[in-house]
Amino acid sequence: MVTGLTRDAIIQIIDYVSKATELISDNEKDSMIDTLLNSRKEGRKIFVIGAGRSGLVAKAFAMRLMHMDFDVYVVGETIMPPMKKGDVLIAISGSGRTRTVVSVAEAAKSIGAKVIALTTYPDSPLAKLADIVVRIPGRTKLAIEEDYIIRQVRGHHEPLAPLGTLFEVTTLVFLDGVVVELMSKLGITEEDMKERHANIE
Amino acid sequence: MVTGLTRDAIIQIIDYVSKATELISDNEKDSMIDTLLNSRKEGRKIFVIGAGRSGLVAKAFAMRLMHMDFDVYVVGETIMPPMKKGDVLIAISGSGRTRTVVSVAEAAKSIGAKVIALTTYPDSPLAKLADIVVRIPGRTKLAIEEDYIIRQVRGHHEPLAPLGTLFEVTTLVFLDGVVVELMSKLGITEEDMKERHANIE
Amino acid sequence: MVTGLTRDAIIQIIDYVSKATELISDNEKDSMIDTLLNSRKEGRKIFVIGAGRSGLVAKAFAMRLMHMDFDVYVVGETIMPPMKKGDVLIAISGSGRTRTVVSVAEAAKSIGAKVIALTTYPDSPLAKLADIVVRIPGRTKLAIEEDYIIRQVRGHHEPLAPLGTLFEVTTLVFLDGVVVELMSKLGITEEDMKERHANIE
Amino acid sequence: MVTGLTRDAIIQIIDYVSKATELISDNEKDSMIDTLLNSRKEGRKIFVIGAGRSGLVAKAFAMRLMHMDFDVYVVGETIMPPMKKGDVLIAISGSGRTRTVVSVAEAAKSIGAKVIALTTYPDSPLAKLADIVVRIPGRTKLAIEEDYIIRQVRGHHEPLAPLGTLFEVTTLVFLDGVVVELMSKLGITEEDMKERHANIE
Repeated sequence: MVTGLTRDAIIQIIDYVSKATELISDNEKDSMIDTLLNSRKEGRKIFVIGAGRSGLVAKAFAMRLMHMDFDVYVVGETIMPPMKKGDVLIAISGSGRTRTVVSVAEAAKSIGAKVIALTTYPDSPLAKLADIVVRIPGRTKLAIEEDYIIRQVRGHHEPLAPLGTLFEVTTLVFLDGVVVELMSKLGITEEDMKERHANIE
Repeated sequence: MVTGLTRDAIIQIIDYVSKATELISDNEKDSMIDTLLNSRKEGRKIFVIGAGRSGLVAKAFAMRLMHMDFDVYVVGETIMPPMKKGDVLIAISGSGRTRTVVSVAEAAKSIGAKVIALTTYPDSPLAKLADIVVRIPGRTKLAIEEDYIIRQVRGHHEPLAPLGTLFEVTTLVFLDGVVVELMSKLGITEEDMKERHANIE
Repeated sequence: MVTGLTRDAIIQIIDYVSKATELISDNEKDSMIDTLLNSRKEGRKIFVIGAGRSGLVAKAFAMRLMHMDFDVYVVGETIMPPMKKGDVLIAISGSGRTRTVVSVAEAAKSIGAKVIALTTYPDSPLAKLADIVVRIPGRTKLAIEEDYIIRQVRGHHEPLAPLGTLFEVTTLVFLDGVVVELMSKLGITEEDMKERHANIE
Repeated sequence: MVTGLTRDAIIQIIDYVSKATELISDNEKDSMIDTLLNSRKEGRKIFVIGAGRSGLVAKAFAMRLMHMDFDVYVVGETIMPPMKKGDVLIAISGSGRTRTVVSVAEAAKSIGAKVIALTTYPDSPLAKLADIVVRIPGRTKLAIEEDYIIRQVRGHHEPLAPLGTLFEVTTLVFLDGVVVELMSKLGITEEDMKERHANIE
């Protein structure tokens, strides 16, 4: 059994994700899912983008979309076709202000693509230009009330999940939940996904 | 409040991570932390590797190690110096059999580097060659007993967390816990980490 | 006009690529082109792989294949579908011994995919398992006779193109030539390619 | 001996790089080299950025800078420290208008970093904000006069080097020339570089 601060931090992260789930809007989740299902039916492309660890969460979701036979791409990787009107951009940024993410989202809007933003801030530049905003609670929102500050270092109170950790893990787990709902609505089994999984690494 | 299968899946993932934490060995965690702290003190390099979503988890941990001023690199990215005797390789693979991961771990061993493996299978090729193995429960281990199977598709029972999801999320959250313990042992604050965070994306 | 060692090195690289072109086999080039055209006609996938700068050359070629509407992927990137029997792997390695490249090529062969190797060494592990080998002259081959060593540093003779530079540039330019022959055989214009070029970066 | 359009294209690319070298300014090259040498002496970090194939050229140069013991990073990769005042950004964009490249260059300027732009257009947004501009002739510049158009497709004249090919190859070979001049000025041998080359791929 893991003990120590590692354990405290894990418990806090889990607890946070659990509480955050209560705060994510079902309507926003449904809008996201409907948009993804429609885009798949209409043969649209889906692009994902995020910087830093949010970018890794975007890639983790993109892999699962690929396993479900969505036509999906990661902005910045080698194989990236042009975006067309009606395509979808999924942009992940806790602050909603990440420079390159906002810049690519603006480009997507100007092309006539739909932008789905996952962000903590509905007033951020990214959220403002997005067609669909899924608000993911970030530490600022929840943490202050809940006092997510229990470790003392050098006389300071220190968070048990530094920087964007809570946003990133919450977004990852939320999107892994969305994957299961998509699987169900598309009648896709785990076996189907295994057959679309990379096999030469 | 999120409902539907998305909610069910989120709750199951959280529940799983919580139970898995009880099963991760404190000794194995401490060995990993000691090795990382020693490697930092001695000016050693740390390399991380993983394929697919496990590779994303490896990168997410590498970013935090960088924020704590470890000399860390991702195998396969542009900026990767040579590995020297005494350096450390962190290799993440649920099955412990991922071809390129095992191949790089073998190369690391032949150079005299220390290999830390995060895997579900202590008998796998990766675990067998590793100096330190941190066993992360995978679905097979826990799920069968706990019956992590509640969705019905085409007459089949389907898991709420397909493929490696439980391993990947558990490993990410565990490593985010390890980050906090490292911060504490090094006296590093969140403010210190902010100053080492990328600022031009 | 650029002068100095920069100029000397550029002239030597150009001169080398020019001579190397005389040595690349037309039959090997034709085999490669036929295989790519067939795979496109039959709806096969093409995968590319290489490590370090050879990997960058592989990606540069993959982008152009995508611009010509090939179904192409880079091993190790997020969006990588499974390889099937009859698919094609293009593997680039000067030495033909790069560990991860050989490992992936072995996996490809075991699946029943065709392997096209671009390498200097026809006796290397990579070349031996490949279905088609395109021999690209490396420095060792050509350089010794031609004395590609004209700079003196610390009393040593030093090459004007260190490490794999000549192999990498020759392979890039050769593949950019192959692109034009593919365009011609497919009746694809530059305008067609522009329409498939990424547009949101 | 390679024949056909592949050969024609290779010869044209080589010929173009050769002519372009005559047009690159020695002063601009020297400014770039002096800035890189100073940044190394002062312990500054160097960052590189580019989109698409220009990004691959940026990475190829970054690898060689690393082999010469520069403290160099690729914008967008996992391991990227914060940029500080006095650091250097090398930005590659033929048009000088690539959205994300200009966006990151603006961020770099606002931090007080030096921007070195490699571009065809000295009036472009990227060139205008750069501290040092190295003008690399692009097809438009040279090609029209020289008539780099000899293939006929569907009644159109078609270039033998589509899209940004000539800019990309010219920039790569120019930077490989710069590498040799840097090696010489730093007294670095190929053997030194071999010792800093990745060894576990």
